[in-house]
Amino acid sequence: MSEEVKPESVSLYPASAAATPEQEVVCIFGTGDLGRSLGQRLLQSGYRLVYGSRKPHSCGPIPPGAQVMSHEAAAQSTSLVFVCVHREHYDFLETLAPQLNGKFLVDVSNNLEKNMYPEANAEYLQRLIPGAHVVKAFNTLSAWALQNGPSDANRQVYLCGNNPEAKQAVAVISTKLGFTVQDRGSLSAARELEDFPLQLFPEWRLPMRLTVGLTAFFFFYLLTRDVIYAYVNEGRDISFRIMMSLANKVFPSVSLILLSLCYLPGVIAGFFQLYRGTKYKRFPDWLDRWMLCRKQLGLIALALASLHIKNNKTSSFDTTMAWRTDSYYSIGALGFGLYLLLGISSLPSVSNALSWREFSFIQSKLGYLTLFFCTFHTYLYGWDRFLYVSQYKWYSPPGYMLCLVVPSLVLVFKLLLLLPCVDKSLSRIRQGWERTDPENDSKKKSLLA
Amino acid sequence: MSEEVKPESVSLYPASAAATPEQEVVCIFGTGDLGRSLGQRLLQSGYRLVYGSRKPHSCGPIPPGAQVMSHEAAAQSTSLVFVCVHREHYDFLETLAPQLNGKFLVDVSNNLEKNMYPEANAEYLQRLIPGAHVVKAFNTLSAWALQNGPSDANRQVYLCGNNPEAKQAVAVISTKLGFTVQDRGSLSAARELEDFPLQLFPEWRLPMRLTVGLTAFFFFYLLTRDVIYAYVNEGRDISFRIMMSLANKVFPSVSLILLSLCYLPGVIAGFFQLYRGTKYKRFPDWLDRWMLCRKQLGLIALALASLHIKNNKTSSFDTTMAWRTDSYYSIGALGFGLYLLLGISSLPSVSNALSWREFSFIQSKLGYLTLFFCTFHTYLYGWDRFLYVSQYKWYSPPGYMLCLVVPSLVLVFKLLLLLPCVDKSLSRIRQGWERTDPENDSKKKSLLA
Amino acid sequence: MSEEVKPESVSLYPASAAATPEQEVVCIFGTGDLGRSLGQRLLQSGYRLVYGSRKPHSCGPIPPGAQVMSHEAAAQSTSLVFVCVHREHYDFLETLAPQLNGKFLVDVSNNLEKNMYPEANAEYLQRLIPGAHVVKAFNTLSAWALQNGPSDANRQVYLCGNNPEAKQAVAVISTKLGFTVQDRGSLSAARELEDFPLQLFPEWRLPMRLTVGLTAFFFFYLLTRDVIYAYVNEGRDISFRIMMSLANKVFPSVSLILLSLCYLPGVIAGFFQLYRGTKYKRFPDWLDRWMLCRKQLGLIALALASLHIKNNKTSSFDTTMAWRTDSYYSIGALGFGLYLLLGISSLPSVSNALSWREFSFIQSKLGYLTLFFCTFHTYLYGWDRFLYVSQYKWYSPPGYMLCLVVPSLVLVFKLLLLLPCVDKSLSRIRQGWERTDPENDSKKKSLLA
Repeated sequence: MSEEVKPESVSLYPASAAATPEQEVVCIFGTGDLGRSLGQRLLQSGYRLVYGSRKPHSCGPIPPGAQVMSHEAAAQSTSLVFVCVHREHYDFLETLAPQLNGKFLVDVSNNLEKNMYPEANAEYLQRLIPGAHVVKAFNTLSAWALQNGPSDANRQVYLCGNNPEAKQAVAVISTKLGFTVQDRGSLSAARELEDFPLQLFPEWRLPMRLTVGLTAFFFFYLLTRDVIYAYVNEGRDISFRIMMSLANKVFPSVSLILLSLCYLPGVIAGFFQLYRGTKYKRFPDWLDRWMLCRKQLGLIALALASLHIKNNKTSSFDTTMAWRTDSYYSIGALGFGLYLLLGISSLPSVSNALSWREFSFIQSKLGYLTLFFCTFHTYLYGWDRFLYVSQYKWYSPPGYMLCLVVPSLVLVFKLLLLLPCVDKSLSRIRQGWERTDPENDSKKKSLLA
Repeated sequence: MSEEVKPESVSLYPASAAATPEQEVVCIFGTGDLGRSLGQRLLQSGYRLVYGSRKPHSCGPIPPGAQVMSHEAAAQSTSLVFVCVHREHYDFLETLAPQLNGKFLVDVSNNLEKNMYPEANAEYLQRLIPGAHVVKAFNTLSAWALQNGPSDANRQVYLCGNNPEAKQAVAVISTKLGFTVQDRGSLSAARELEDFPLQLFPEWRLPMRLTVGLTAFFFFYLLTRDVIYAYVNEGRDISFRIMMSLANKVFPSVSLILLSLCYLPGVIAGFFQLYRGTKYKRFPDWLDRWMLCRKQLGLIALALASLHIKNNKTSSFDTTMAWRTDSYYSIGALGFGLYLLLGISSLPSVSNALSWREFSFIQSKLGYLTLFFCTFHTYLYGWDRFLYVSQYKWYSPPGYMLCLVVPSLVLVFKLLLLLPCVDKSLSRIRQGWERTDPENDSKKKSLLA
Repeated sequence: MSEEVKPESVSLYPASAAATPEQEVVCIFGTGDLGRSLGQRLLQSGYRLVYGSRKPHSCGPIPPGAQVMSHEAAAQSTSLVFVCVHREHYDFLETLAPQLNGKFLVDVSNNLEKNMYPEANAEYLQRLIPGAHVVKAFNTLSAWALQNGPSDANRQVYLCGNNPEAKQAVAVISTKLGFTVQDRGSLSAARELEDFPLQLFPEWRLPMRLTVGLTAFFFFYLLTRDVIYAYVNEGRDISFRIMMSLANKVFPSVSLILLSLCYLPGVIAGFFQLYRGTKYKRFPDWLDRWMLCRKQLGLIALALASLHIKNNKTSSFDTTMAWRTDSYYSIGALGFGLYLLLGISSLPSVSNALSWREFSFIQSKLGYLTLFFCTFHTYLYGWDRFLYVSQYKWYSPPGYMLCLVVPSLVLVFKLLLLLPCVDKSLSRIRQGWERTDPENDSKKKSLLA
């Protein structure tokens, strides 16, 4: 550690909180927004900090307590350097290769667009300075997140690199700064990490496509049956119905199907586990991907359900019809209420506050209850209409029948899984207590659920 | 510290961020999900980590950077051992009693059901190895929470144990891992801690019971007055009204009573404090319990209120009636809007973002305003109906009268507390500045509000 | 470090997690709520802790593991003292001036009201003990927040002081305790920090005033046009309309204007940046203040919009009118749905979970779409009414025309900014890549976006 690194301040701390003799030194190249924010947090976490700059005497504002040096001197003073410089300016680092030999280099850079360069920034840096150990890290955090410290949502530091010691060193610093580390493997994962901040709702893509597809199908199906049929057969122009009456049929239909698609993969997974007799085998990829977007499916379903305009008036011709109509509305309101509850409980701050048992109670038990009420609501809507031939215009079944298929199937399958004998063996499988395969027995011994 | 614990990696850190010479060693028995997750976080927080395993050479995947040893060697290398093993396999630990003598043992285990065993897992462990200092901790955290780091909701580590040094050591590790520690006393509290993850909405139980009770009462009361009365006296079957019209009377009634029950305990507490002349005496247990479930009462009240179906049509016979009807709807809408605001501000992420003064402003001032609007809305509904004998079917008052009793009382009591003279002495008591008891005067000196 | 500070417990930790030889000692004066909570967290973070008390042998409960001493002895044992005492009792500290000379004193106190004293508590403390280095800190945290650890909302520790080393020492302790530090400058900022916990929704003040003003204007404007006009010209008393029909016109009008006022400053800022050719020049103060309250404006707008009572009935005289009416309702519902989405995404826990790109997508793209739908909804409401002279009662335009002015302007300006040539140069400016000023070129080099 060179003499001039030592800030004069140290001697002023009389055996105090801040200045332990082994206070570690880290270095930052670059005094931009990110460099300053990162530096501030490093200082606050008790590190000594040296900035490397081309013009140490005129490099703009740096956090109080830090030092500025030439790149060469700064590199020599520490074993870990954060490179907070645009990729466009990496070339100057090549001249520092001797000083950076054997050092840990942390690449925090991002690009403005995907695929701007043939190789990831971190891999490019590694190629420029082969003697250094490059770690990609911190690039998913904004300068703002760094300065304000980790929040629930900005807690994760993803890192990758080829040298385990370099990764461990960066992991320890990240943890001291309050972040949680997730190791994504070797430096070849750098490209993936650099694409992270450029993603736009990746987990919503599949559900959105599904929604658009289903909506388009129901729209054209009902357009044909309701509007075009009336025009062709009766010569009436009721095209204005597209805006309200049709929308009011399309949205709830799609909503119900999406809701049932939230619960279908769980049922399928149950049958898989029963068939295989273990929960330790991976599901097929398509099922995994499906299960990961259940929350998004449910939220879109809720949004569509709330566009379902409710006009509730009791028109009591006879008691049976009044019972039917009133039940139809009540069950619908109840179903929507439960729906809302599911939506609220999936807000990050609410779901975080629930224990695992409470969360699964709401999302599973209440979820199936919601599905049941909404399906029942639709059956009440249908009532005995399926008996009348006039409903099958152009031999096509009414829309509400189509949207009842998947929910009904899900409910029936779930009922099968709830049969006492099935339920018992399934829950034993899920507790990890039971498997048909005897050779795994020894493994189980030191395993905590 | 035995020689072989030292990972070769250490020598590679040249006075770097990670490797201080006193890097502490901790040990984990068990390489299951929880053991691995805990190990990963310990490594990231800068600890050196040794796994104890029966088969050190074939124990499955462990986090990179950790070592695996036999249980005996692992136990000797450190003074603190996390036992991440199922209770069913604790018996093997008995053979390690000599090596574990004087060590700190952290029991992180949970059971699948309450009361599976006569004694808590941690107490059983202590009995097996009397020479060790057992601390119960971390069992309320899932492997998932450990791996992803503490979030707002998974921040608390509850611990208990008989040895203060052992507890302090575990507390320091927890804090380094980013968690907050809450000490629950001696090891006899272990059973309570082990029951924590098995709880299902314990704080909602009392409010739910109250809701079910009140709903049942109003349902049968109104069923008798509305449906059965019509059938008995007039022979009309209007049973279908159960589904909508009755529900539309029961839910708002229960909602209004529940809302007022949110504010009643605060008023009672005010009178207690006025009577006692101090805020430092504990309230009776029932009041404490009541005050702790106010949030839940309020949220159930909000849910019921939103089931209250609104069909607003102005039917203007004369100006007075139009004023009344329109005011009835407007006040209702306003009350419900404020109600929603209260609900939103009790979302964890919103209430956390408020200062204490802001939170109490919303929950107290706006809360009473909401109660006032909703009560007023109900009075407008009643209007002059109480004057007509026909309303008192079978000599029973209409439902809306019953549900006005508690809210009116709460509002009157609150008004009493707001009288300038009463308010002044109450707020002086609540600031802790004033008490009638002169002997406590000295105590106050070093006390910060 | 004096001998008697050393707790006997230390020797019991055999090279363990807790007791490194350099364990730092901090001191707390005062054993009240805040002193105890702070002490507990300090102990859990691995500090050694000494309480200073006037009566060391009868000072009430202190956290286990801490020591109690006389103020003099406590002050000598450490270099950093937290003063957890009411300002009223600061005078006794004057007698400790010799022992506190050169020490770091942390003032954590608050007052019950603003402007209770001529100078800030911290400045008063500094005046009493001129030889000490006073730092104001931790006063914005409640004892509750200290004990339960930092959450997303209670993470920030504001500090100020004249001595950089003292501030750095407090910053390091805060960070170890899990908090994030924000340095507010010299001790003269103490007054501002002491006012923080007493603030009541400061960022809502401007939007609320605006809302009240606009509401009052539209109320009296529409009262005159609708109610008074009918009374004067036709002798009809329709005053009851104030409660529903008028409110139903006032709220959506104000809501639409407020929504457009959310997006107006962004548009103005765009023109500023285009004109100046850089994003690095500060906006005028009024624009900055305006931009900071956009979220509040939007939320009030949403609240008012949801008070907008919707009664949707299709009355199909002819196809054109049916199209118009149905579109009016559908577009309104869609607009309100998007509105709600904007509101939900501004919940702290939701917006935290979004990446910057996702957040700006929702708040900007979806925001303008919402504004467009709501404006279009209002145009559909107007339709061809503006053609009829009867609409201009007393030569005044109907209310809906007035509320269309600002939204239409915002949409037109935004369209201008979206013209390809304008958009291109604006986005280049916003990426920081382009500026007209050649002399700044060198600065750019080491800057990371």
